[in-house]
Amino acid sequence: CLKLLLLLQIQFANAEDKQEFQKYPTKAGRRSLSRSISQSSTDSYSSAASYSDSSDDETSPREKAQANSKGSSDFCVKNVKQAEFGRREIEIAEQDMSALISLRKRAQGEKPLAGAKIVGCTHITAQTAVRHLPPPLSLSPTGVPVFAWKGESEDDFWWCIDRCVNTEGWQANMILDDGGDLTHWVYKKYPSVFKKAQGIVEESVTGVHRLYQLSKAGKLCVPAMNVNDSVTKQKFDNLYCCRESILDGLKRTTDVMFGGKQVVVCGYGEVGKGCCSALKALGAIVCITEIDPICALQGCMDGFRVVKLNEVIRQMDLVITCTGNKNVVTREQLDRMKNGCIVCNMGHSNTEIDVASLRSPELTWERVRSQVDHVIWPDGKRVVLLAEGRLLNLSCSTVPTFVLSITATTQALALIELFNAPEGRYKQDVYLLPKKMGKTMEDLIDKNVNKYCRY
Amino acid sequence: CLKLLLLLQIQFANAEDKQEFQKYPTKAGRRSLSRSISQSSTDSYSSAASYSDSSDDETSPREKAQANSKGSSDFCVKNVKQAEFGRREIEIAEQDMSALISLRKRAQGEKPLAGAKIVGCTHITAQTAVRHLPPPLSLSPTGVPVFAWKGESEDDFWWCIDRCVNTEGWQANMILDDGGDLTHWVYKKYPSVFKKAQGIVEESVTGVHRLYQLSKAGKLCVPAMNVNDSVTKQKFDNLYCCRESILDGLKRTTDVMFGGKQVVVCGYGEVGKGCCSALKALGAIVCITEIDPICALQGCMDGFRVVKLNEVIRQMDLVITCTGNKNVVTREQLDRMKNGCIVCNMGHSNTEIDVASLRSPELTWERVRSQVDHVIWPDGKRVVLLAEGRLLNLSCSTVPTFVLSITATTQALALIELFNAPEGRYKQDVYLLPKKMGKTMEDLIDKNVNKYCRY
Amino acid sequence: CLKLLLLLQIQFANAEDKQEFQKYPTKAGRRSLSRSISQSSTDSYSSAASYSDSSDDETSPREKAQANSKGSSDFCVKNVKQAEFGRREIEIAEQDMSALISLRKRAQGEKPLAGAKIVGCTHITAQTAVRHLPPPLSLSPTGVPVFAWKGESEDDFWWCIDRCVNTEGWQANMILDDGGDLTHWVYKKYPSVFKKAQGIVEESVTGVHRLYQLSKAGKLCVPAMNVNDSVTKQKFDNLYCCRESILDGLKRTTDVMFGGKQVVVCGYGEVGKGCCSALKALGAIVCITEIDPICALQGCMDGFRVVKLNEVIRQMDLVITCTGNKNVVTREQLDRMKNGCIVCNMGHSNTEIDVASLRSPELTWERVRSQVDHVIWPDGKRVVLLAEGRLLNLSCSTVPTFVLSITATTQALALIELFNAPEGRYKQDVYLLPKKMGKTMEDLIDKNVNKYCRY
Amino acid sequence: CLKLLLLLQIQFANAEDKQEFQKYPTKAGRRSLSRSISQSSTDSYSSAASYSDSSDDETSPREKAQANSKGSSDFCVKNVKQAEFGRREIEIAEQDMSALISLRKRAQGEKPLAGAKIVGCTHITAQTAVRHLPPPLSLSPTGVPVFAWKGESEDDFWWCIDRCVNTEGWQANMILDDGGDLTHWVYKKYPSVFKKAQGIVEESVTGVHRLYQLSKAGKLCVPAMNVNDSVTKQKFDNLYCCRESILDGLKRTTDVMFGGKQVVVCGYGEVGKGCCSALKALGAIVCITEIDPICALQGCMDGFRVVKLNEVIRQMDLVITCTGNKNVVTREQLDRMKNGCIVCNMGHSNTEIDVASLRSPELTWERVRSQVDHVIWPDGKRVVLLAEGRLLNLSCSTVPTFVLSITATTQALALIELFNAPEGRYKQDVYLLPKKMGKTMEDLIDKNVNKYCRY
Repeated sequence: CLKLLLLLQIQFANAEDKQEFQKYPTKAGRRSLSRSISQSSTDSYSSAASYSDSSDDETSPREKAQANSKGSSDFCVKNVKQAEFGRREIEIAEQDMSALISLRKRAQGEKPLAGAKIVGCTHITAQTAVRHLPPPLSLSPTGVPVFAWKGESEDDFWWCIDRCVNTEGWQANMILDDGGDLTHWVYKKYPSVFKKAQGIVEESVTGVHRLYQLSKAGKLCVPAMNVNDSVTKQKFDNLYCCRESILDGLKRTTDVMFGGKQVVVCGYGEVGKGCCSALKALGAIVCITEIDPICALQGCMDGFRVVKLNEVIRQMDLVITCTGNKNVVTREQLDRMKNGCIVCNMGHSNTEIDVASLRSPELTWERVRSQVDHVIWPDGKRVVLLAEGRLLNLSCSTVPTFVLSITATTQALALIELFNAPEGRYKQDVYLLPKKMGKTMEDLIDKNVNKYCRY
Repeated sequence: CLKLLLLLQIQFANAEDKQEFQKYPTKAGRRSLSRSISQSSTDSYSSAASYSDSSDDETSPREKAQANSKGSSDFCVKNVKQAEFGRREIEIAEQDMSALISLRKRAQGEKPLAGAKIVGCTHITAQTAVRHLPPPLSLSPTGVPVFAWKGESEDDFWWCIDRCVNTEGWQANMILDDGGDLTHWVYKKYPSVFKKAQGIVEESVTGVHRLYQLSKAGKLCVPAMNVNDSVTKQKFDNLYCCRESILDGLKRTTDVMFGGKQVVVCGYGEVGKGCCSALKALGAIVCITEIDPICALQGCMDGFRVVKLNEVIRQMDLVITCTGNKNVVTREQLDRMKNGCIVCNMGHSNTEIDVASLRSPELTWERVRSQVDHVIWPDGKRVVLLAEGRLLNLSCSTVPTFVLSITATTQALALIELFNAPEGRYKQDVYLLPKKMGKTMEDLIDKNVNKYCRY
Repeated sequence: CLKLLLLLQIQFANAEDKQEFQKYPTKAGRRSLSRSISQSSTDSYSSAASYSDSSDDETSPREKAQANSKGSSDFCVKNVKQAEFGRREIEIAEQDMSALISLRKRAQGEKPLAGAKIVGCTHITAQTAVRHLPPPLSLSPTGVPVFAWKGESEDDFWWCIDRCVNTEGWQANMILDDGGDLTHWVYKKYPSVFKKAQGIVEESVTGVHRLYQLSKAGKLCVPAMNVNDSVTKQKFDNLYCCRESILDGLKRTTDVMFGGKQVVVCGYGEVGKGCCSALKALGAIVCITEIDPICALQGCMDGFRVVKLNEVIRQMDLVITCTGNKNVVTREQLDRMKNGCIVCNMGHSNTEIDVASLRSPELTWERVRSQVDHVIWPDGKRVVLLAEGRLLNLSCSTVPTFVLSITATTQALALIELFNAPEGRYKQDVYLLPKKMGKTMEDLIDKNVNKYCRY
Repeated sequence: CLKLLLLLQIQFANAEDKQEFQKYPTKAGRRSLSRSISQSSTDSYSSAASYSDSSDDETSPREKAQANSKGSSDFCVKNVKQAEFGRREIEIAEQDMSALISLRKRAQGEKPLAGAKIVGCTHITAQTAVRHLPPPLSLSPTGVPVFAWKGESEDDFWWCIDRCVNTEGWQANMILDDGGDLTHWVYKKYPSVFKKAQGIVEESVTGVHRLYQLSKAGKLCVPAMNVNDSVTKQKFDNLYCCRESILDGLKRTTDVMFGGKQVVVCGYGEVGKGCCSALKALGAIVCITEIDPICALQGCMDGFRVVKLNEVIRQMDLVITCTGNKNVVTREQLDRMKNGCIVCNMGHSNTEIDVASLRSPELTWERVRSQVDHVIWPDGKRVVLLAEGRLLNLSCSTVPTFVLSITATTQALALIELFNAPEGRYKQDVYLLPKKMGKTMEDLIDKNVNKYCRY
């Protein structure tokens, strides 16, 4: 479920190219620059306005004229003055990213992405920057043009994508996508890009699903690498990462005590396993819903009651969705929740909770904190909705640097593989990372293991 | 280790008295009003300044003229305009405090504290207010005069205490203390208060220790109730609460991933047990130091290596103190830590880590976030020091409302017991809560149990 | 709940005394010699008959003439020929009992029990022997006369006790009891023993309860030491020991898989905590019943649903009692259990499950294995009853040597303290182990800690 | 690692065929009939001799003339008189095998294995029988000829296999193997069997490895189904099953207390994960060795130190191998272990511990219990070797019925698929179970889930 960005090419490519070729829009309504540089750091801003949802500064970043310290203005962020602050966050992040740094070092000689012109669309965080920034630059004022800010509208989002793809004098030959939106836009608006493109690297379940559909329909024009189904993604991005971010996200938004709370986790895949494991360990009483019998049996063997949501909904203190499906929590179920019940989503889409059904006249919405709404029923009952049903772990917690390092390294290896593959090796189909690259990955991780856990 | 405040007397006493008699100073350098109303809520302030360490508004609260909505100005807080915001936080807190609310209801008829004039000195949080505020009032602008703000200096702190004790036309007859500072001040400056005082209720290890010393020396002038050693305090305040706040405090300050991290927890009392249990559950590799053999053996049976700090200090990613002793982590050990090691304190005092030794010219301090300092050695090594060695759980996390409810109820019962005891029952000594009160406590908790965990 | 034996006096007393003074009856119907020497070893007996409930050799031990290798016949066991085998078991046990061995060494010079004549009544295990046997002897053929065998009837049990107390030419001056039966017998039959006796050391909850009643009634004639309430007993004997023996006892009797099983544990004291923790960790879905609100709240905070037995009894796969009360599981509840439900007792008495109610004509009992009965309802439903409702951990699992070592050391220290106390220090009352002895205990345990868990 | 047997054909095939076609040899030196019918039941045998290693009855089963209740003598077991006892065990087992029973019911009409003549070679347990026995028969005296007994020599083992394959008037057309020995024998001795055989179903890692080698070499003559790599096998047979059997096996053999013990688990695959999880939960201090970096990182994230065996071997109380490799524990490492260290194997082969190196003149072996040897060094140091290095979970614990049910169902589905596949679907290659069968499996498991864990 986690999505992130990797852009190694500055280190990998020739130095002189770096000013010209990357572009990053970010997902609308997701974590973007000012938010992600560090949630917990916002309190040391000279102005914390950028963190607030109701910023004083109402000028859209699209209309601001900004230039970085080198004079470039080929970017669009909220406030370029925060660059210095961002740099410190990046330095902190570097300490926990040894796999990526190993790869960066190894790549410095080889320059395996020399000549690559990569356009990417993913989430921007402090850790994102580690991969491509020479020390004296901070995130947006770098040579890597970034188009992203917190609070982008849907329209802003597509505008940013368009600005990245449609650049005079520069055309991408690699696509790094996370969700399939960039790929979708290129297909729709600039199909000629695929004539020169050497491939797509896709991170997300959703994006991979779209690619397989394209492939089946015979419409995939370039090779694509499915990074989502790698072990590293499944275990680290999902299981280990969500095990921590569910706790973090809930605490930061609600300060809820976990001990003794009744929790239902919908879906017992890797994300659900992570959530259940953490909450159980902290004394919550956890049950699960699951339609797949193999997963249900695993849940059962792991000590969780397997229930139907309807049967337990009235007693729950906390409802968490991790299924990847739509309307897992319906309006009817929201109606039956008890006063104070917290509802949030850790799954793949923002439609697991039927939030739309809550935007109706008989219900009152009260924003009590950032990312926290009380939805109030006529009888006074309040349901606490987090992040308006969007991903809690992206909206309300941070992503551990260590995990990002591993996932980003996988993405980098996929880019390198596609970009350097001899002609004909990859056809217009969807591929998994080849074993050879898995081996390189292991080598890089091995350094982590040696550093982190071998005594 | 957690400290908190209870003030039930408005509900318990006659309504007409309430305007005149309570005073609350807070601990210098600890959690105070604006901070504690809700750490996580600060982002929805119209101005986030109050949360920041470097506030724009440099006027001391002592010099501001403020009045609440009723026109009273017998209080001193940072910004009375935040009162409305605070009220919302209080309403949120009420939902999780059924034991206290049960007691409040039961007390409404009996008014067991009618006539009590209580001066208290403790930490102020949103939850604090639940116990004494009639709905239409918010924290500081209530009839309960409060003297507290975030960022008090040592001098401010004693000034606040003095303002509470030394009030014209009003003299306290009960003392509610948490740490012994208020008691100390009264002894030193206003010993005559003890002529009419009916008792002291003390919450903390340190304060209780001082009371026993006074008693031994024959200098205790009134009965005192030791609330620290009650089961509810030991289990809920320490074990269950710290199990959650260690994770919360670390995430909010450092975003560290727990999985695979090497941690040493110094001290395996209830606080240490809570920390170890939580970190182990999230995949950290935890060892402990402990001098008491029974506790050490328990740690061993719970699956933790029992080590000497010197033997492991070089490998640790995280060092946590929970011993209650001084200089548990010495400068020499700080010198030997690896780059990036995080050091924090969950114990009873702010002297467990020898922070003073780090304030020397060869080391550079860099404040990277609120409550987070990088201490930098000449060779570039950084140690990440949290909350300058003060209590992490008070400085950097929130206290679960549920736990506060239980502890506060215990304090209230202690006040009621001392205030209503027939003459002669309590002499000038230190007492534990009598069984009868324990029974009342159980009844009140029983309601929690029925509500929270019985099906 | 666990009961065990300690007899250090051979090492502590003068060598020449040892032949004459100790006697050990054992609890009727509990673990006795051949069984306990080692359950898992019985398969290497030349004859496994002694382990079987339906032994071929039907001669009562009371009627057999046996003599040990030294020619003494002042003992009564099932088969003295197993002595050699028992010796090997004892040697194995010694390796894990360093606290006791440290005490034994320390005592060799001082002989703190020289002159003590101890009569004891407790469970006999291989570990029991470690404390008093010089290497070349095995359990029963030693100078310590033992009267005990597996399968004693109620009548046998009292006969054994009587044989120990009523010995010509020898009279006990110390009583080591575990359950109060020996004390009871002496009071009833040989009250003159108390004229010379220097004290009673009592291990069990039940026995301690009786002693307090005697004391209250002014009928206690000698000082008594309550060993039951020491930290070491509560934590090691109950929590840590039961955490392992619940699993062991269930596996050896039923081979049940824990993962996914629905379990209710009645009672959340230290024994219940141990059972719950182990079963939860192995994937069982555990809920608890508990009438004490503080314990119930702890259960809740530890992540267990707190339920009423009636509400869940139909769904349970496994019902475990650890309350210390009578008829916790009633016939009505047994009637409502599902087919195949396993019922067992880990608490203090054999009356927690109303087994008597199952001995009625409409139900069929089928002994399917040793310690395992199927009770069959007219409709064919089977309930699996373990150990006929007696203590599972004594009947069907072994007691970890390490735990026995600690408990036995505590008992030895209590004997030494009572025996050597200056006249007048202890009156006719019930005492806890004095701090000084607690300190010695810590020293001894410290050696364990250093050996077992310090690195 | 666990291996088990399935034989559904009696229910699936025409009733009149059943007398003639099945044969079961068992693994030499592994769990065989009398042992496995139920380890824990042996104590209620009229003679426990069959469980003992030193049986009084020294006649080889090969030389005994036995006939079952129907007069058939086409089988070879130790003692056909135990049949009635075995039947009771089988009835107990049936209660926990709903997936298999569902399949059996479904198959009764369809008879999907009518005409199949299956020869199988696997472990025989009570649960094995559930799948093929009509109620009035017990294990060996059934129409299914069984050739197996506890304590088979290597020679006996191959004799049993030969008796099964080489039967006059009957020739197998399906092979159900677990380890590849039966397949090996048929290749070597009766290659003509493959002319009519419709396929091989192989359960084990080792056997699957051999099949892939045959396939690569172009020597595989029939289609083969790899059951080992199914999710159900990996999760249930390995992870969940070993999580319980490691504890059970250690307790039954050594009565060791887990709390505080230092343990190294070699290999962090599914078996290692199960062992680590269980031991950690019971308070052992666990570290792991692992050469695969992805697995090592998982171990690290799960909270285990990743070490080199040489670095920790001196401190360990318990060494467990689960790698599948040879000589994971070398003689040199055995030399360096501390006194009393327990060594056992949970992996795939009996060569993980270099047991051969211990059979040298300077070391003394002492059999202290069944399956437990003390290997004694000249200086008196003892290492406790379990099951002579063979699989602990097969030698010293029982396999949960529930797990067997799931694995057996998988095997049955594989047989049905191969036997009924239209010609040409499967070529001379190794296949995984097709999705369609996976769906059937899910349906069957779903019934388990509904019965066991849905509320």
